[in-house]
Amino acid sequence: MEKPTLPKGTRDFGPAVMAKRQFIFENIKKVFQKYGFQPLETPAMESVKTLTGKYGDEGDKLIYKIRSNKNLLEHYPQLQDCDCLRSVYNSNWIPMASDKALRYDLTVPFARYVVMNRNEISFPFKRYQIQPVWRADKPQKGRYREFYQCDADVVGTDSLICEAEIILMIKEVFKAIGITDYTIKINHRGILSGIAEHVKAENETSLFVAIDKLDKIGEEGVKNELRGKGFDEKSLTTLFHILNVKGSLTNKIAFLAATLDTTQHGMKGLRDLQEVSNILKSYGATDEHVEFDIALARGLSYYTGCIFEVKINNVSIGSVSGGGRYDNLTKAFGDKENLSGVGFSFGVDRIYDAMEELQLFPKDAQISSKVLICHFDDESFHYGLGVLTKLRAAGIASEIYPDQSKLKKQLDFANKKSIPYTIVIGSEEVKSGELAIKNMEKGEQEKLTIDQIISKL
Amino acid sequence: MEKPTLPKGTRDFGPAVMAKRQFIFENIKKVFQKYGFQPLETPAMESVKTLTGKYGDEGDKLIYKIRSNKNLLEHYPQLQDCDCLRSVYNSNWIPMASDKALRYDLTVPFARYVVMNRNEISFPFKRYQIQPVWRADKPQKGRYREFYQCDADVVGTDSLICEAEIILMIKEVFKAIGITDYTIKINHRGILSGIAEHVKAENETSLFVAIDKLDKIGEEGVKNELRGKGFDEKSLTTLFHILNVKGSLTNKIAFLAATLDTTQHGMKGLRDLQEVSNILKSYGATDEHVEFDIALARGLSYYTGCIFEVKINNVSIGSVSGGGRYDNLTKAFGDKENLSGVGFSFGVDRIYDAMEELQLFPKDAQISSKVLICHFDDESFHYGLGVLTKLRAAGIASEIYPDQSKLKKQLDFANKKSIPYTIVIGSEEVKSGELAIKNMEKGEQEKLTIDQIISKL
Repeated sequence: MEKPTLPKGTRDFGPAVMAKRQFIFENIKKVFQKYGFQPLETPAMESVKTLTGKYGDEGDKLIYKIRSNKNLLEHYPQLQDCDCLRSVYNSNWIPMASDKALRYDLTVPFARYVVMNRNEISFPFKRYQIQPVWRADKPQKGRYREFYQCDADVVGTDSLICEAEIILMIKEVFKAIGITDYTIKINHRGILSGIAEHVKAENETSLFVAIDKLDKIGEEGVKNELRGKGFDEKSLTTLFHILNVKGSLTNKIAFLAATLDTTQHGMKGLRDLQEVSNILKSYGATDEHVEFDIALARGLSYYTGCIFEVKINNVSIGSVSGGGRYDNLTKAFGDKENLSGVGFSFGVDRIYDAMEELQLFPKDAQISSKVLICHFDDESFHYGLGVLTKLRAAGIASEIYPDQSKLKKQLDFANKKSIPYTIVIGSEEVKSGELAIKNMEKGEQEKLTIDQIISKL
Repeated sequence: MEKPTLPKGTRDFGPAVMAKRQFIFENIKKVFQKYGFQPLETPAMESVKTLTGKYGDEGDKLIYKIRSNKNLLEHYPQLQDCDCLRSVYNSNWIPMASDKALRYDLTVPFARYVVMNRNEISFPFKRYQIQPVWRADKPQKGRYREFYQCDADVVGTDSLICEAEIILMIKEVFKAIGITDYTIKINHRGILSGIAEHVKAENETSLFVAIDKLDKIGEEGVKNELRGKGFDEKSLTTLFHILNVKGSLTNKIAFLAATLDTTQHGMKGLRDLQEVSNILKSYGATDEHVEFDIALARGLSYYTGCIFEVKINNVSIGSVSGGGRYDNLTKAFGDKENLSGVGFSFGVDRIYDAMEELQLFPKDAQISSKVLICHFDDESFHYGLGVLTKLRAAGIASEIYPDQSKLKKQLDFANKKSIPYTIVIGSEEVKSGELAIKNMEKGEQEKLTIDQIISKL
């Protein structure tokens, strides 16, 4: 029998990796909750019609569909006597597609939830959602077919405090997990529209898509792409005169306010950014880590207001978080009321990789017992069970080696499982009640009573 | 456009339900970790061949398979000119099955993981796994197509301490979540084999399957089923003479030891149960809640040693936990080494329903801000942001009403979200720094400084 394998693009998370992942998830969850976000979970399977048409043609192709348990001949009895079908059908059971598919992201299921529960929800509604999503993408380094998303959204308010709190939450999460060198890029779709108007772009979208690639293909690359789309040299010069502005948030806003003063969207965008900056000040926060990046566009997405993207500096990993404000979360479901919202998402897989690269995981980010009880015979084994009960009653994760084995094997087991302390019990310990506790890393050993051990740990 | 819906048998978990579910999950996780179990997560999608053949014919039919992105005509170009196929094909895109399917339980993925990572794992390996599974079952009350399993298993040891610790963990979880009236039924497959031998049953499995239904169809029902399988009246009388024995664990063991003394499996089973009871005593635990149920069989499953089932008393809900020892976790994957293990699973959906029925959820089992800051104007809003920063810095989950709205609307929002405290800030508060904090449930209000508020909360 051949060895079992995992489907391409999927992963097991064993204990060591799980502990590190949970360290990230728990810190994100704690911050979300501290900011008043409430948890939501939606099913992995959605109706096909809930998902299709929401992600563009390319996205639709990447949706995993569930197959029905009906097969073709059950569904079309008239095909029973079709000879050419029979020629392939003998050896191959041909199923029908079902009406279910695996969720592709967390935003569309959230929108569906809001539409279905509109009357019970108190708006503004702050929800967070941490669940896996599935994409039939070509697997490659850092791209998986199953991966977690970690979203927080507020719907039902236009207040720019939400944008400010996104910045605060990103800062707080990164502080908690130990990431110190990073940049939160912020821009505004209104400003991009203002620039498009200013350079007289005929097609806003082509402009945004090209600008979005600036990081990857450089100024000349973007210019070439735009030349292909009919932009003239004068426009391109004006465009890069704007995109290349340097300086603080305040400097850039002042420069753009003078340049885009005739564009309504541009001025709205600048006012919004200024207000976000003011709100941050009222929070007692600074602009540290925040960069107004006029070239940030976030591709073809549905954003209409502020947009964000977060990059960890000095690691070979793309953006680890992103988001922005959108105007019509529920419109795709025929909802008439205009529900504006703003949200963002942490890319946990990339944060994990960056933290590994920077060696940021704390040493104790492991889920393991703190103590292993070792024993020599049946008497010390049973005595050890009583010691174990006391340790656990004190909330100390601990275990006893379950079999009668040589001490060396028991200690090796503690080392392999990274259990930091062992207590070795023999007939002497049973008699005296004084237990030998050993620090496995330092190799130091001392004799203590169980109560002393508990207060020590 | 029609309103979106959820696929049958699936559920959204909104904030209120999520908080209660997390209360159960967190307590289970805490106990698992305290007993030295380590987390594992496996992908939702497994290879079809990993799953099929492991759950019996009925189970195989309930596995959700993913469909391929290839369609029939791409796969069989020779069907392009088939007229009868074309007659249905015009309107219906006919897909192929893929080689992937959704996991049906957590045991088979765990076995696959162990086989694939045998060289890296330190045995005995204690793992817990809390993830959803999918079954294409007919949805009905309490039966879903997507639901969570909560498994803990130890593989690589025959020690009966594992069985004893399963009982301890069940007790500890139930204590933590407030369930007090329940029964942990325990039996042993060896004892059932001994009984089968004693009553000269030709087919052990038919006997176990029938006995397993005793709760549902009663003594006469079981007898009738066994008569149909060829059991004679004498065997049936002997059988129920055994099954109807009453008394304590010790009494039942004594009775069975006398009755099954010639059956090797029966005596092994009785020795194991006695040893589990002895181990529990060494832990300082009692037999409270534990019942030796000679009729417990756990159907067709693959158990070979002790078996468990847990029932919450006085609720209309089936068993909420079950498990047992098995001999060959990895045999189905062609593994030559005999990996024995023992495991059990909590049925979180049923525990949830039971706790709702018994009103056991603590009032504060909700994930919501503790404080909502309300405000009258732009000045008090910006002042409130500073207050908010201080509350959050003290670790208090809190939020500010994001829009300029009437106070009544802001207070209503706090009530709807079950936020227990509000701080209302007006120009007077901005001037004095004394803030009015209101207990929303009691309606009481007092004036305190922010530092006093933080120490109060």
